[in-house]
Amino acid sequence: MPRTYLTPDHHKKRINRLKEKIDQEGIHTFLLFNSKNIFYLTGFSFIPTERPIVLIVHSGEVYFFVPSLEIDHVQHQVPFVSEVFSYFEYPDEQHPMHHLARVLEDELEISPNRVASESPGAPGYWGYKGPSLEDVTCLKFKILPDTVMDMRVIKEPEEIEIMRESSKWADRAHKYLQEYTEIGANEIDVTIRASAQGSHDMVAELGDAYHPTGFSMFPAIALYRGQIGSNSYFPHALSRGLTFKKGDTLVTGASSDVYGIESELERTMFMGAPSPRQKELFSAMLSAQDAALEAAGPGVKCSEVDRAARRVFKEKGVSNLVRHHTGHGLGMEGHERPFLDIGSEDILEVGMIFSCEPGIYERGLGGFRHSDTFVITEDGVEVTTKYPRDLSSLIIE
Amino acid sequence: MPRTYLTPDHHKKRINRLKEKIDQEGIHTFLLFNSKNIFYLTGFSFIPTERPIVLIVHSGEVYFFVPSLEIDHVQHQVPFVSEVFSYFEYPDEQHPMHHLARVLEDELEISPNRVASESPGAPGYWGYKGPSLEDVTCLKFKILPDTVMDMRVIKEPEEIEIMRESSKWADRAHKYLQEYTEIGANEIDVTIRASAQGSHDMVAELGDAYHPTGFSMFPAIALYRGQIGSNSYFPHALSRGLTFKKGDTLVTGASSDVYGIESELERTMFMGAPSPRQKELFSAMLSAQDAALEAAGPGVKCSEVDRAARRVFKEKGVSNLVRHHTGHGLGMEGHERPFLDIGSEDILEVGMIFSCEPGIYERGLGGFRHSDTFVITEDGVEVTTKYPRDLSSLIIE
Repeated sequence: MPRTYLTPDHHKKRINRLKEKIDQEGIHTFLLFNSKNIFYLTGFSFIPTERPIVLIVHSGEVYFFVPSLEIDHVQHQVPFVSEVFSYFEYPDEQHPMHHLARVLEDELEISPNRVASESPGAPGYWGYKGPSLEDVTCLKFKILPDTVMDMRVIKEPEEIEIMRESSKWADRAHKYLQEYTEIGANEIDVTIRASAQGSHDMVAELGDAYHPTGFSMFPAIALYRGQIGSNSYFPHALSRGLTFKKGDTLVTGASSDVYGIESELERTMFMGAPSPRQKELFSAMLSAQDAALEAAGPGVKCSEVDRAARRVFKEKGVSNLVRHHTGHGLGMEGHERPFLDIGSEDILEVGMIFSCEPGIYERGLGGFRHSDTFVITEDGVEVTTKYPRDLSSLIIE
Repeated sequence: MPRTYLTPDHHKKRINRLKEKIDQEGIHTFLLFNSKNIFYLTGFSFIPTERPIVLIVHSGEVYFFVPSLEIDHVQHQVPFVSEVFSYFEYPDEQHPMHHLARVLEDELEISPNRVASESPGAPGYWGYKGPSLEDVTCLKFKILPDTVMDMRVIKEPEEIEIMRESSKWADRAHKYLQEYTEIGANEIDVTIRASAQGSHDMVAELGDAYHPTGFSMFPAIALYRGQIGSNSYFPHALSRGLTFKKGDTLVTGASSDVYGIESELERTMFMGAPSPRQKELFSAMLSAQDAALEAAGPGVKCSEVDRAARRVFKEKGVSNLVRHHTGHGLGMEGHERPFLDIGSEDILEVGMIFSCEPGIYERGLGGFRHSDTFVITEDGVEVTTKYPRDLSSLIIE
């Protein structure tokens, strides 16, 4: 059975790792506001709204501060929570941050100089306004925005297994996307049908092994995002309800959410036999992707991977068509640090996961970009998305 | 033909309104980072990533500062843009904020004391790190996080027309959700099918009148979010792949995205004939929703609307089952200011749009909450979601 979720024991280990990290900085109490970081550490997934939700890691114990509508939800999802503190609602007659101040100072009796927070106050979201932590308490907060994000950069073996599973369902949904694409069809309709069928397969085949986190409405997606025909020239086009015509260059996207971990798969496809120029740009892009994957491995600089792809584009005389770097970290968000970019100072390490997606864009003709998900291994890389990359597999007759 | 989008002329009027507002504060140049605010003012929709994208409103003219992958995309979408400044990529060898500093100081020659920004620097997003605007320039920025959000609170007549259209498609998708719900079905499967069919209808029936912004993958959605049977007790449950059984209390959700404007529709439904307690709580919830809608109107305090719903819950002896306030502003985000909450100081004005969703939650039995979208009118309110609210329409046999 493939791994499709993590257990409370796994989350407790992460809490312990976090405790060790902050101990080294003399911090006993850490307040976390970022919803993905909270999920990473505790398995509690929730809808972020204007109502502040705070994870408090205090002397290695786990506390939550939540609005009343989340009290039982936390207790249900996080078996190892020590105590759930709450306020009724935002904005309410007393601002939640004043309740939080009381919890920190009176209930937890926090040491004034050994406390840190991800941000100076609750992040503004969906209309939230509020004072900073230092406005409402006598505590002096160290701001540590990167501590958990840094932990998330190196994926654990279990996360890599889950990323393989996510890649599998991205491949599946993409298969339907290609199958349903035909001249005259609307991109939105094809997107809907492929995502619906891919998600249906995933729910049916995984059965009880599927533990949705609720972050994504559709378990698997495969989509067009407006990169159709000459519009595929815009690297970050958005869906415009376009219809497919003969000769179009297409750039697709696919992913699936397995316990909050999301792979990335993109393909360049053609409506009918490609022209010599379409073939030429496709081939340059494919060579650049090969070169980047070949360059990558443990101990290599991120910048070197980007340079390898750029070198190919230069050799092929298409450097002027480049609009972005070669890739970005992957995990629980669309993009994560580090970046495969000539400006990056980071070194690749075993367990990092990236997209590999060098692209070129020619006005009038379109965009040429595959994206694959790959893991840094002891030996080099493992590409987890398996969808065919070669030209002949990607022509829609 | 119903209104389904706004034109560049409309956006230009908003830019002029913004100019008048900031002129009053002695501001000549305003930097905007919030993607929804940028769309509101210019019609430019884009995928927010770690790459900073900045709208610069300078002496009433519109400039953009974008990564190279968005240069042509902006020009394509915003016909009235004066100039698009750019940097190649993030992180790149030189940080984008240094490029921005050069644009502000050398190209636009901004007056050092008449400049404002929505935030002290680019918002941290998807792994972005960077200096503040004052770290990289000699300019003194006034921080105005609320200026555009305040403009967005009162909806223009055109936005209200679009909200009616969004409500219509939320109703349609919800019809499919109810139709597909049956004993033994999986919530995710029903969600997928209803959203796919509702979206299909919307794309097919609107045809060329549909101008997707790309913010939402599915034009119309109707979903279960885990609020099924005893799990519906959690007001903000998340999808867990539950199956429907006889006796379940269900709480649904539906919306559609018409030019970035999103209605809200939720219904409490029952799998088979409800028990006396289910009927009692449903009836209390319905009376509270009626009372809130009756209390609302121009000149009324937001807090009074919340109080009207709470009064009903108190009369019915279920105040202890309340977990949240009565509603929130609606527009381009899931929740917006102001809030229908006893702590709100805001006064209802013609053109504001809200959800009306007083709810009660009984452990073991479930949640009882309808949500409808309503507009404040000269005469009182107009409810734009039309889905049946009465008990007999919401029993699934």
